[in-house]
Amino acid sequence: MLSLHTPTAARWLAQVDAGLDEILVDHAHCEKKAAGVAMNLLFSYVDHAPLARAMTEIVNEELEHFRLVLDLLERRGIPFRKLSPSSYGPRLHERIRKEEPAKAVDRLLVAGLIEARSCERFSVLADHVTDPELRDFYRSLFEAEARHHATYVRLACGFTPEPTVRERLHWLAAEEAAIIDRGDPVPRMHS
Amino acid sequence: MLSLHTPTAARWLAQVDAGLDEILVDHAHCEKKAAGVAMNLLFSYVDHAPLARAMTEIVNEELEHFRLVLDLLERRGIPFRKLSPSSYGPRLHERIRKEEPAKAVDRLLVAGLIEARSCERFSVLADHVTDPELRDFYRSLFEAEARHHATYVRLACGFTPEPTVRERLHWLAAEEAAIIDRGDPVPRMHS
Repeated sequence: MLSLHTPTAARWLAQVDAGLDEILVDHAHCEKKAAGVAMNLLFSYVDHAPLARAMTEIVNEELEHFRLVLDLLERRGIPFRKLSPSSYGPRLHERIRKEEPAKAVDRLLVAGLIEARSCERFSVLADHVTDPELRDFYRSLFEAEARHHATYVRLACGFTPEPTVRERLHWLAAEEAAIIDRGDPVPRMHS
Repeated sequence: MLSLHTPTAARWLAQVDAGLDEILVDHAHCEKKAAGVAMNLLFSYVDHAPLARAMTEIVNEELEHFRLVLDLLERRGIPFRKLSPSSYGPRLHERIRKEEPAKAVDRLLVAGLIEARSCERFSVLADHVTDPELRDFYRSLFEAEARHHATYVRLACGFTPEPTVRERLHWLAAEEAAIIDRGDPVPRMHS
């Protein structure tokens, strides 16, 4: 699904069941970080008009999701707090090449893969949780994340020809699969 | 006006008349930077709920303004490009204290003073330019910047008592006045 090489393991659902509140708090942080990633891309490549405009839209949507998760936490009386992130993001970012335009391609594809994994996990969560409000919430986020994945892959093709982008996406997706399979001991959206 | 200690000097309008296209390009960068400042504050103080929610709104509004300036540049055939910033922002940021909670107070008040100055300059520009589209555009931005100024000052009061905030705002506004009076040789929104 969405370029991903491996589905979420059942192991993760055991983490969700044991630490749903923490997953929800981490979810808010993930939406904030997704907005931050798009903002950083806007700053780095502001003179690429299609990228700059697309990033403003993604920032807005991710911050809207962030607010929605904060609302959900408030309704449930779960205190929002700082939380140590999973190692998923930093490990993926280590794969980003240092020289342009390869760096731009990798930053966009890594952002796109994180969106794809979030999308897959929302789908898994929507099928797994029994709470109707949460199920509907995860379903409502699915479409935006899938769209963001496609946007990032398309924008990467503005920096290098599409076949090269596809090849690199395939390689990065294999790395992503290895990282997500390795998991994390703490319950997180990407543990 | 809006805590400012000095009005814009006539000298600046000569820079505007000689380099309006560059002022417009810089304006786009200023909106982007204003969004970036709000995003950075969101990341630093995400567990302050009123601040976090207010920042998501300011980010969205500044990015909306950024897109509006890009549209204006496109309609006028002015190429958007990277541009060296004026020294105004960095000079103001040097005044920010290093220890919390003073750092939070100063970051918010500096952001608020930049919004106040932008607001004042939009008003000056609206009265100065003869182009009706530009005049209406500057008028349309005025209200949001004034509101953002008030929001930043109010949020600073969440970190230290209001009289202390007012005293610090007065001091920082005097610094801001000295910096803007000194100006910059290049035509910029804050030269």
